[in-house]
Order: sequence, then C-alpha cells, then structure tokens
Amino acid sequence: MTADPIRGLARLPSVRRLIELALDEDLGRGDVTTAVTVGRSEARATAIMSTRAAITVAGLDVAAAVFALVDPRIQLERHAAEGDRLEAGGRLLTVRGPAAEILMAERTALNFVQRLSGVATQARRYAEAVAGTPARVVDTRKTTPGYRVLEKAAVVAGGCGNHRFDLGSGVLIKDNHIVACGGVAEAVARARRDAPHPLRIECEVTTLDELAQALAVGVEVVLLDNMTPEQVREAAARAHDRGVLVEVSGGVTLQTVRAYAEAGADLISVGALTHSAPAVDIGLDFA
Amino acid sequence: MTADPIRGLARLPSVRRLIELALDEDLGRGDVTTAVTVGRSEARATAIMSTRAAITVAGLDVAAAVFALVDPRIQLERHAAEGDRLEAGGRLLTVRGPAAEILMAERTALNFVQRLSGVATQARRYAEAVAGTPARVVDTRKTTPGYRVLEKAAVVAGGCGNHRFDLGSGVLIKDNHIVACGGVAEAVARARRDAPHPLRIECEVTTLDELAQALAVGVEVVLLDNMTPEQVREAAARAHDRGVLVEVSGGVTLQTVRAYAEAGADLISVGALTHSAPAVDIGLDFA
Amino acid sequence: MTADPIRGLARLPSVRRLIELALDEDLGRGDVTTAVTVGRSEARATAIMSTRAAITVAGLDVAAAVFALVDPRIQLERHAAEGDRLEAGGRLLTVRGPAAEILMAERTALNFVQRLSGVATQARRYAEAVAGTPARVVDTRKTTPGYRVLEKAAVVAGGCGNHRFDLGSGVLIKDNHIVACGGVAEAVARARRDAPHPLRIECEVTTLDELAQALAVGVEVVLLDNMTPEQVREAAARAHDRGVLVEVSGGVTLQTVRAYAEAGADLISVGALTHSAPAVDIGLDFA
Amino acid sequence: MTADPIRGLARLPSVRRLIELALDEDLGRGDVTTAVTVGRSEARATAIMSTRAAITVAGLDVAAAVFALVDPRIQLERHAAEGDRLEAGGRLLTVRGPAAEILMAERTALNFVQRLSGVATQARRYAEAVAGTPARVVDTRKTTPGYRVLEKAAVVAGGCGNHRFDLGSGVLIKDNHIVACGGVAEAVARARRDAPHPLRIECEVTTLDELAQALAVGVEVVLLDNMTPEQVREAAARAHDRGVLVEVSGGVTLQTVRAYAEAGADLISVGALTHSAPAVDIGLDFA
Amino acid sequence: MTADPIRGLARLPSVRRLIELALDEDLGRGDVTTAVTVGRSEARATAIMSTRAAITVAGLDVAAAVFALVDPRIQLERHAAEGDRLEAGGRLLTVRGPAAEILMAERTALNFVQRLSGVATQARRYAEAVAGTPARVVDTRKTTPGYRVLEKAAVVAGGCGNHRFDLGSGVLIKDNHIVACGGVAEAVARARRDAPHPLRIECEVTTLDELAQALAVGVEVVLLDNMTPEQVREAAARAHDRGVLVEVSGGVTLQTVRAYAEAGADLISVGALTHSAPAVDIGLDFA
Amino acid sequence: MTADPIRGLARLPSVRRLIELALDEDLGRGDVTTAVTVGRSEARATAIMSTRAAITVAGLDVAAAVFALVDPRIQLERHAAEGDRLEAGGRLLTVRGPAAEILMAERTALNFVQRLSGVATQARRYAEAVAGTPARVVDTRKTTPGYRVLEKAAVVAGGCGNHRFDLGSGVLIKDNHIVACGGVAEAVARARRDAPHPLRIECEVTTLDELAQALAVGVEVVLLDNMTPEQVREAAARAHDRGVLVEVSGGVTLQTVRAYAEAGADLISVGALTHSAPAVDIGLDFA
Repeated sequence: MTADPIRGLARLPSVRRLIELALDEDLGRGDVTTAVTVGRSEARATAIMSTRAAITVAGLDVAAAVFALVDPRIQLERHAAEGDRLEAGGRLLTVRGPAAEILMAERTALNFVQRLSGVATQARRYAEAVAGTPARVVDTRKTTPGYRVLEKAAVVAGGCGNHRFDLGSGVLIKDNHIVACGGVAEAVARARRDAPHPLRIECEVTTLDELAQALAVGVEVVLLDNMTPEQVREAAARAHDRGVLVEVSGGVTLQTVRAYAEAGADLISVGALTHSAPAVDIGLDFA
Repeated sequence: MTADPIRGLARLPSVRRLIELALDEDLGRGDVTTAVTVGRSEARATAIMSTRAAITVAGLDVAAAVFALVDPRIQLERHAAEGDRLEAGGRLLTVRGPAAEILMAERTALNFVQRLSGVATQARRYAEAVAGTPARVVDTRKTTPGYRVLEKAAVVAGGCGNHRFDLGSGVLIKDNHIVACGGVAEAVARARRDAPHPLRIECEVTTLDELAQALAVGVEVVLLDNMTPEQVREAAARAHDRGVLVEVSGGVTLQTVRAYAEAGADLISVGALTHSAPAVDIGLDFA
Repeated sequence: MTADPIRGLARLPSVRRLIELALDEDLGRGDVTTAVTVGRSEARATAIMSTRAAITVAGLDVAAAVFALVDPRIQLERHAAEGDRLEAGGRLLTVRGPAAEILMAERTALNFVQRLSGVATQARRYAEAVAGTPARVVDTRKTTPGYRVLEKAAVVAGGCGNHRFDLGSGVLIKDNHIVACGGVAEAVARARRDAPHPLRIECEVTTLDELAQALAVGVEVVLLDNMTPEQVREAAARAHDRGVLVEVSGGVTLQTVRAYAEAGADLISVGALTHSAPAVDIGLDFA
Repeated sequence: MTADPIRGLARLPSVRRLIELALDEDLGRGDVTTAVTVGRSEARATAIMSTRAAITVAGLDVAAAVFALVDPRIQLERHAAEGDRLEAGGRLLTVRGPAAEILMAERTALNFVQRLSGVATQARRYAEAVAGTPARVVDTRKTTPGYRVLEKAAVVAGGCGNHRFDLGSGVLIKDNHIVACGGVAEAVARARRDAPHPLRIECEVTTLDELAQALAVGVEVVLLDNMTPEQVREAAARAHDRGVLVEVSGGVTLQTVRAYAEAGADLISVGALTHSAPAVDIGLDFA
Repeated sequence: MTADPIRGLARLPSVRRLIELALDEDLGRGDVTTAVTVGRSEARATAIMSTRAAITVAGLDVAAAVFALVDPRIQLERHAAEGDRLEAGGRLLTVRGPAAEILMAERTALNFVQRLSGVATQARRYAEAVAGTPARVVDTRKTTPGYRVLEKAAVVAGGCGNHRFDLGSGVLIKDNHIVACGGVAEAVARARRDAPHPLRIECEVTTLDELAQALAVGVEVVLLDNMTPEQVREAAARAHDRGVLVEVSGGVTLQTVRAYAEAGADLISVGALTHSAPAVDIGLDFA
Repeated sequence: MTADPIRGLARLPSVRRLIELALDEDLGRGDVTTAVTVGRSEARATAIMSTRAAITVAGLDVAAAVFALVDPRIQLERHAAEGDRLEAGGRLLTVRGPAAEILMAERTALNFVQRLSGVATQARRYAEAVAGTPARVVDTRKTTPGYRVLEKAAVVAGGCGNHRFDLGSGVLIKDNHIVACGGVAEAVARARRDAPHPLRIECEVTTLDELAQALAVGVEVVLLDNMTPEQVREAAARAHDRGVLVEVSGGVTLQTVRAYAEAGADLISVGALTHSAPAVDIGLDFA
C-alpha cells in the first residue's frame, strides 16, 4: 500500500495560488479565438483525457481544481487514481460541460498533468530499478519552484520516497555547517542538543574518519556524497553496525542506482526525479 | 541582435508572486540546520555561481530577485547576460553577503536558473538546427503553469521565437472552432470581421482543400499539423504564393526539425522547448 | 452577432482580486448600521435591479460574483444579457435572499454595473455614429487601472471593438521607437523580423513620406494621429492600395467620428470610451 | 489649510495590490514593441508629465509608486502637490531614468493620475459652487470599486469633504432599516444604544413628521433625500434648532448645489464627484 | 438583544486571507502521520466540538470556514450561536465527514475558536462587572494584528462594545495631536471643522482645565486617561452637564472597573479584553 | 548559546502577508485624526519603545518591518536582541522619522511586540522552572493561527524549544491513527516503513503495555499524555532503557512542570506557552 500522495493538496491555499497564476497567464485576457468564432454558444461537450504513452498518473486533483475554477459546471469522471499505471491510450478523465469553458481550461489542466505525471513516471523507473533491494530512492529540494508539494506527491505516486520537505523539516548538516562549527563532532553535537526532537540528525561525511566522528556523537543518518558503490559498501557496513541509516547522493542515474542500492544504501537521493523529468504526452479529445 | 528577453520581468507582480511561493515553500519554517549549528553568526561569505556544463544562460534576473527578497544586503556581480553561451565551468554570478542568508536563498535561486537555462539551452539546440534556413522555431502554450513569461523569455534567450503568449494574444482557429462554425471559410471570415485588428488570423488546415478555402477568405497564417515534410512543401508553396505564412507543428524533434525548415515552414512550433527541457547543472560554491 | 463579451471573466483570478479589494473596502469592518438596527434578523427579501435611464448593459457577471461572495445563498434571476439595450425602467436582475446580506452587497454590485454599463452605453453611441460605414471604433489602453479586461468587454458589449489588450498583445511602433531605431523603415523592418508571428505590425506615421516608407517595408496597419479628415482621406487611399489597414486616433469625439469614418479610416481609437464614460444610474429596489 | 489627502496612501497594502493588478494587466506579457525595436538599449531619458487643461492635482503618490515598482532607478521630481491647481501646460512631474522602463510605466501612471485628478477637478467645481456658504459638499460610497481610499483623498484634494468611508465607519439609517425596526424612533433609539460611541447617528427622513420623531430621540444628523430647496429650508430650520446637522442628497448637480447650500444644508452629498468625473488630459512628453 | 457579531465575517476576503495563512502554515506540507498510517482511507467520522470549561462562544463562523476550505464535504451542525454561554461539557458543533480531512482541519479550527471564545469569555466577565450601571466596557486597538474584525466581534458576543475600528473610523485627539496644534481648543476646533461628519469628536483631557477648554469648543466625547474614580466623578459631572460622553481608560481591571462605572463613566476601554484574554479549552472528540 | 530565533523571519512572504493584513486593518482608511489636526506637517520626531515590566524580548524584526512598510524613511536603533531580558523601563528601540508616520505605525508595531514578547516571557518562566534538569519545555501546534513561525521563534527566544512545526514536519501517531491501524505496533511499523527518513517516529501511549508494544517495533519518541509524575517516572525508565525519548503533555502548568522534569521527561509540551501568554506592556514615548 502506498500512502495517498495528493489527497486534498489541490485545496491548499498555496496550490490554489499557483493554479491562479496559471489561469491568469493563459486566460487573463479572455479567449479571443473562441469569442470571435464560436461566440456565445452554450453548446456542451464531452472530452476524454488520455495518455499517448505508458505513464504513472499524478496531478489529477490539480486538473480537477483547474476545471472547477474555470467553470463549476464542468463535471469530471475519474478513470485513474494517483499512482496508477496506464498504457498508451489509457483514460484518465472524462470531462463534461460547456464546450467553450472546457477549451479554455484544457491547456492549463493538461500542462499540470503532463508535468506531474512526468515526475511520477520518472520516479517509477527509479523505483523499479531498485526493486527487491532494501533501498528507497528519494527526491531532493531540486524541485520546480512553487511546485514542491505537488512534485513530492508525484514522487510518492511513482513509488519513490520523500526527503525533507524544506529547510525546516529536516536537519541535514553539510560541509559549510561543519566548517562553521569546527568539525563534524561539534556540529552533530550542537544539532542533537538544540534541534526539535521530531527531527533525526543527518550529517554529510566525506571520509571514513568523518564517519567515525559522526557515529561517535550519535548521528542518526549519514549522507555519502559522490562516493563509488565500493566506498558506499564500506561506509554503510560501519554505519549499520551502529544502527545508523545511510543516504547516498550525487549524480546517481538510472544506470547506476541499483549498484548503490546493492552496496547497502538505505536511501538514494536523485535530483533528476523532479528537475529533469520530461513531460509525458497527454491529450484531451472531444468525443 | 536579440531582443532583451527578461529585462525587468522579475519585477512583475505575477513573477514576484511565483518567487514568493517558492520562498515560502523552502524557507517558510526557517532553516533549522543553520539555526542549530551556525546560529546567530554574522559571518560574511563570497560564493560563485557557475555551470558544470555548456549552457545558454537564462533566469539571472529571477535569481537576483530571490537573493534580494531573502536579504537586501546580499550583493551580486553578474558575469553573464541572458542568452550568453557559457562553457562548463563558466561563471554566472558572484554573490557576496551574510553567509547564512546566502545559504537560505541558494537552492531557490539555483532551481530557477537551472530550469530557465535548461529551456534556453534546449532552444539554442533547435535554433542551431535550423540555422541558415528562413524558418524560426517557436514555443507553444505547453509551458510550466505559472512560468509562461519566464519560459518564453528563456526561449528567446536561446535564439528561438515566441508564439502567442496566451489565449488573448493571438487568433488560432483549430478543428473544434471550425466544426462549430461549419467550416474553415466561415471560421476565418468571422475572425477577420471581429478579431482585434492587431492580431493576424491563423487557421489550422489538414488538407489542401482546406488550405484553399482558408486562402480564399484571407487567412494570414496557416498551421499544418502532423504533416510530413513533403506535404509541408506542397502546402507551403501554395501559401507563399498568397503571401501567407506557414507554421508547422506536431511531434517535431531535433532530428526532424531541419527537414521541415527546408520544406518551407516559416515557423515550427515545438512544445518540448518548454515542457521537456532538462535542467542544466549549475552550482554555487563558496570561495 | 456580437462575440460574448464577458463570459466567465468574473471567474478570472485577477477579476476576483479586484472584487475582493472592493468588498474589503466597503464591508471590511462590517455593516454597523444594519447590525445595530436590524441585528440578527434572518428576514429574506426580493429586490429588483433596474435602470433609471436608457442604457446598454454590461457587468452583470461581476455583480453576480459580488453577491455570491457576500452570501452564496443569494439567488439571481437575469433579465438582460451583456450588450442588451434597456429603456429607462428596464430590469436587469431580480435578487432574492437574506435581506441583510443583499444590503451589504448592494453598493458594490451597483458600483460595478453602473461603471461598466456606462462604458457600454458610451460605446453604443460611438458605434451608432459610424453605423453604415466600414469603420470600427475601438478602445485604447486608457482604461481604469485594474479594470482593463472588464472595460474592454464592456466596449464590445456596446458594439465597438478592442485595440490591443496590453503591451504584449500588439505591436504598435510610436515616435520614440522610431527615433530609437533611426527611422520608420528600420523600426518596421526590425518588428517584422523579430515580433511574434501572431501579431500584425502597426506603425504611427505623421507624414505622407513616412507613410510611404512604412508601406515600402511591409507595415500592416498605419496609425494616423491628430490628422484632419482630409489628411486621413489621402493617406487612407494610399494605404488601402497596398492592402494596409488605417487607424485614426487623437481627440476624436462623437461629433467628429463619422467624418473620419467616411474619410476611409478602418479603425478609430477613442480613449474616452473608457476613461470618461459617465456612470449610468442603476438602482436596487426592494419589492 | 486642507488636510493632506493621500500622504502615504500609495504605501497601503490594499493600494499596492491595486497597482499590482494594473501593472500585471498592462505589462504582464512584456512590452513586445519596445523589445523588438529598441531592444536591450540602456538609453536614459527625461520626460515631463504635464496637463493639457486646467486641473486640480491628485494621484501623484500613486504615479510615484507605479514608477518605483517598474524600476526603482527611475527618479521623480515633483512640481505640484495634491490639491494644487494647475493651468493648461502646467507641470506635475519630471521623470528621469532608463527610457524603456519609463515607457513601460507611462500608461499605467498616467491612467491613475488622469482619473484621480479628474475627481479632484470635479470636486473643485462643486467646492467653488458653494463657496461662501456654510455648506460642505461631500462624496458618497458610489466610488470606483477598489479605489475608495484614493478617490476620497482626491475629493479632499479638490476641496470637498468625505462622507463615511464604508459600512463600518458611519451609522446611516435608511428606509429599509426603518421598516425593519418599525419606525424612525425605534431605529434611532436602537442605534444610540448599541452603536460604537465614536459614530454619530444619522437617519434619513422623508417628511417633517419623521424629522420630528428623529429629533425627539436624539438623532445627530438627518439626511433629506430628493427634497426641493424649499423643503430643505423648512426642515433645516427645525433641525438646527436642536443642534442637529442636515445632509441633503439626491440628484444634486453643479446647477442646483448652491440653492441647497443657501437653503441651510450643512452637507450636500454628490455621487457624481466620483462616479462620473471625466478623466483630465495629462501627458508625458520626452524632453 | 445583542447585535449579530460575526454574521458573514468569515466570508470577508481579509478574513479568508488570514484563514489561508493558517492552513498553509499547518497543512502546507501535507499530514505526514495520517498519510503513512491511515493512508488513502475514505473512512468517515463524526466528531463533537465541546468545551471543557464555562465559556461564551465566538468564532464558529471561522471554524466553519476552515472546515469548508479543507474539504467541502465536511458537514457541520451548530449547537450554539455567537454569544451563547455554555457550561463545561457544552457542545458547540457536530462535525461529520471524511475522517482524515476532519483531522487535518481540527487544530486550525480549534485554535481560532479557543482564541475568539477566550476573548468573548473575557468580555463577558467585564460586562457582568458593570451590569446595572449605565457604563459600557469597550475594546481598544490593542488587538492581535490581523484579527481586529474577528476580535471586535468576539467582544460584542461577550456583551461589551466596540471603540473605533481603526484610525479612519473615529476621531480621537491625543496628547501629541494637542501639542502639534498648540492646545486642546485649537485641536478640537480643527477636528470639528474638517473631520467627516459621521464621526464624533473625542479628545483626551488630563486636567479639569483642559476639560473646560474642550467643552467650550464643542467636544462630543472626552477621554480621561489614568484618573482615579474620584477624579472621574468630578470630570464626568461637568461633561454630562454639557451632554458630553465620558470615556475612561488606563489600567482598568476586573477589580476596578465597577468603581469607574459607578463614578459616571459612559465608556470604559480595556485593552486586556483582546490582548490578554487567555484561550479557553475546547476539544474535538471523535464519537 | 541559543539559536537565533527570528533572523530574517520578518522577510518571509507569509509573514509579510500577515503584516499587510495588520496594516490594512488599522491604516486602511487613513488616519483621520492626524489628518484633521496635524495635517501636512513634515515634523520629525524621536520616540523610544520601552517596556513597563520585566520581559524577554521577541518580535523586534516584525516591528522593524512594520515601520519600514509604513515609511521607509523611519530609522530604527535597536537596544535589545531577541531573547534579551529587560527590566521594567528597559529600552527596545529608538525610532526616528516623520512624526505622523511613526504615529500611524505605532499601534501595529506595538501590538506585534507585546504579543510576541509575551510569548517569550511566558517561555522564560517555564524554562526557568525546569532549569538544572535534562528536560526541555516545548511548544505545541496550539498557536495563534497565522503566527506559528513567529510564536515558535518567540518560544525559542524565551529559552524553550520547538515541537514539530506543522503536520508535515513530524510524525506523531495519536489515538485515532492507532485505532485506524488496529494497534500501536502496526501503526509504528507502518510509519517506520513509509515516513520520510528525516523524521523520527513518535507515538502516544497510554499504558505500559502500549509502551512495550511501541518499544518493540522501534518507536523513537513516546508521548505520555495526562499521566501523573509517578506514572511518567516508571514509563520513562523503561523508554530510556531502549534509548527512546519521552515527551509529556496534558495540562502541565508552571506549578507542575518541574515534577515532570524530575520524573524523567525529556520533553514537556505546553500549549499555554503560545495560546494563553498574556501580552506584556510595552509603550512608545515621544522624546
């Protein structure tokens, strides 16, 4: 069972503001073509949103919010849930309502679903690449600005996991924090003392020596950046001896991810899940 | 000379709102790691934003706006302008100011520049693919919702052109408008009569017969969707005889774009310029 | 048939923000008079919105949005559509619902309808003044800031047409652009090369010599500013020989507009359509 | 001495939001003409904002805010203060800065000043019409939605006064409140008991009998709607005997206002001050 | 009968913005606990909002708005109205709908009701302390920033009254205004001449001499700050002789308020009504 | 050393929106008293913000933002930092600038500082009550809606700690989650499997048996709700044996908090830190 990824996210005020930005930019001056050709027509239409390629679905709640904002008379029937896999030709939504308003909302709704399903589909590839290992592939903060909550939900829909949401919902001590504190041990110790207790203490380590320092003062997760699978294997063994989780990051690709998973990484963070997932091809066809 | 792509765009209220969404989502609960390790330090730092690969630059105005919002004391020195090409290792910005605040703004600023430079870099590839032909590659409305003005500027920075901005700044008659009007001739005629005069009348045609109808009633641009280069050649010749521009769209790739350009397309619209441009790898390193 | 002027405009997020500004400014501290006299009364009422003078109707969608925001229980019955002409005493709306909430929404709803119907009524006068000629009277960017999409819809409701919506949806080369480029020919040529293809190229010309230059490089619309009808006649003849549209602007009044129309202007732009249309007198009477 | 009408109003968040709506609607897609003709030019310019007719000035603070939002490098020199009278040709502002950005802000800045100075100029005419009498002409709530604070400041700049700002800053008992309470006496009595003490109790009366009832229970201002000057004279005499202020409203024009003033009205409210003030003609000329 | 305190306030755009801030801050990153334990469950639940102590109710409209924003499928049954007194254990609301969404809205809804009912409950204590005297206890501008309209409604729900809403809806001349004008007489005289007529003129006086000055020029309310009940008695007698209202302020407590009321104060303003009312303990229990 | 509590928080867009709500509500209709008495005066003033009682300081960054928004010419000199303790009479700020604008900003700035310093001062009392024990008193989600980031920073300024920021930045399994999962063991196990790795797994337990279940499946923090200190002592001993943190909550007061701390609680969460902290008395006096 996968946790529900975007249940109700489209109702969040911050997501609403993003959708409003999108509608203002596309519809803000009206739809001049429809106005001068179709005019005041109240003709109704039925349209099918379907995919032209195999995808993992994400973003339908946002699409639903787009249609509802443009015209509350538009009615939707859902044929897929977040995280569902569809083959090419598979149906996502049936849209019924006034034809002109469906056309006005179409592009914005599709743009959201294409992007978010693109992220979910990309995540699915990574999840499958590590299937059968104990490793979980997770996202990063390299998301499209303004889209974090949506893209992180799409990552979950695709079967991967989430890293910290933002700078306030995780302690991740990196090189510059270490420098400022005068060393790994001092940095981790300060964090253990002062950080909110719901947060585990994670620290980046670059050598086995730093790893040992971090383990000695009670680190809970170690981040191994830009190491080879062999290096990861050695470090992970030592960390696991202390019950400490191991995250791997840095240029991991679909080709290399399984090697890291098999080397003992508990978590493998991949920025490309969100920053470089190509849009998937989804269309809306009038019946 | 290329027209200045995003001069002042970052000051637009709508762009400001997008940046604010981005800051709220990453910094909205503070930076807990910095707070518990570095604390109240007023240490200053200098950091260099540079690229790890060859890119075409876009988005620096937005990055500048991000840094200014997080802390107006942060000072920037620009080493590149919108549309500049940089090799791997090339510098974009030098950032000077309080270290903690630079760290807080870093990820959001980079996320914007990585995406927008990704679009510009993708556009550059297409622009080069048609170099020497009269064709211009243009974007579509398949942009990241909320990012249209920024992504369209990045497309121009990369040497391609813009199609209509939104549903109100261009007349583009498509199949469903034609059906609603009872034919190409009637649809184009209505548009010529009622559309605002600053807009040319563009109409999608799928056959040579429809092309003839459209030309007969004064269409100014014809859109040829999903045709082969050979079909485009024939249609373009007829359109050009009447002084009518020809746009080609539908699944055009870097591999096929030049064939369409050589077949006589004046404009080739490519959704992938914006919806599937991978992010480029840009980092911020403390000196 | 006139294109539907404000179908759904009241649902645009930007229009919603304007309506919210209006409600905050009038209701933001509550309705103290009703609170201390009528109090918690749940009494229901029926009220009729009608006009005290002959008008052309615009703005009812906005009024409907105002009532819906104040209290979704308020129900409306429409007696007129955008662009309809009503004699004095004619009914626009029947409003039914809780009396206190109707009173709270009344002034804001009326203020919108009075202003927008004022614009439509003014536009109707100009449209009638050129009836039977090929000329179309169009608006300008001299709109009430924040009201452009609403006022331009009201102009269409009154039977006139729209000029460009904003600085991004039309190319209009004026004197300072010409100076910066070193002449009409260079300015028009640059625009033809670089402007988005959905936009026609319009250029202001002040002499027949400039007109000749513009025609020579492919201008599509010429703007004749502050010319006499006689001067317009001469210029229009030359422009029309090249299939080029002629716009006239500059101090045109209801008294002079027909002379310009008869002199061959295709478009006559009149700022007073929007910036100086007096409000029409509309009231809401409880039955 | 007149109270400063809009000192700092342009800094109010609500006014800022209105200005942002205005900039988004005009500049939201960039300035395509300037981009394709002038391009990246950093040329600087000086421009003079001056009036083509005799006016009373209002709105310069808003214009200043517009220029500052578009480009903080634009510098302004003020030649007139709110409420100053200028003859045709009189200067309001000198604007210095980058030419392209001045052009982008020009129309929005002018649209605000033309409208608000139009209101001030209209108010001046009414103020002069009652000069020498004890009466004050005041505005109403019939303002442009979203503009109340600005238009009320312009009314003061023109020498008239303000009525209540909104439904929460004045007690004005009208016919429907009276009906709901079962009579003038009960309505006024309830208001005196429950209304916030900073507010005077004003009640509309339509007959001398109602006037007597209102006076008997301690009304502080009476509103006489749609009475003749003769009727006002009689009612005012009775009210003044009790130290009660008299407001007159209903279709008062520049032609009739003095007669009401001379009949004893203390306050004469005129909706046309704000809802039908024609814009004044103000331009921005590059030096 | 008490005037309805917050009828419809929760629908005001400014209140909506406050509620949206609240939802963004608590739900903006989703509900991770529910997601990973309960998951996609569509289980429905019924929950009862009840009080653990005796309270006066306020804020239910805001709670209703919170639930509606989180999920419009949540249905509410109200068991109490604004201003009702409940004993410990008393029910306010029954909430029915999807369990996960009720849990997501719970904390924000409760936080509003606990605070606003806290204010109403505090106000009730003061109202009861002066019961039987002619004095009314009123609030001040010392409200929680962003909550003024809500807290002032809660004050009314608790049986106290409102002072001016903001700096624009009351004339209250204090020491620094007096200094700037050169004395009480001049300050009051200016205000009587220039202030909007719906507002009474109130002036702070610190001595009987200043009181005499203010009375001489027509002050309508005098504010006695930090006086003893005996001093108030003397001043009130003189003011009442002239039909002038007397407000007392400055460190009044539940212990001292009745003494001031019996000394003749018409109004007693108490900042602690809003700035220091402790939250009341209200819970939501699943049935 | 205490981590910097609100460094830069006042620059967050969400905090900016709260400040704008506050300014709109107090200044939105102008300052009528100052306008009619002081008028256009450009007089400058110096004012001192100081406390009338012993406090711990918080909120000065917000006050600074308020003054800057009202008039950027206002200059501030800070005499205290967040978390500083001041005796009665101690100075917080010196404010210099135009007198009228200082008066306009005064109330809003003070209202923020009074509330946030009230929270910090309350937190200080609790921090001192447990001084010398290993326990940390922490806040809850029972904050003023819209104020969470500010109140949590004030809690830190007062020497207490923060619990999770929101529903997304901590896993806290409560009774209804347990019921939905069928037991403590299953709920904790699901959370360990699916929750983002930066978050510790905390679970409420009500009996020693539930405690044993939770410990058996790897809970990291246990929440003991409404237990006596004796019960806490027993449970804490068992939890500490497994290296598990113990949080105590439920009606803890200043009187009882130390007993819980001495019983072995690592964390004691107290809603009253934020929901019932009385405002402290801070004033602004003109020099």
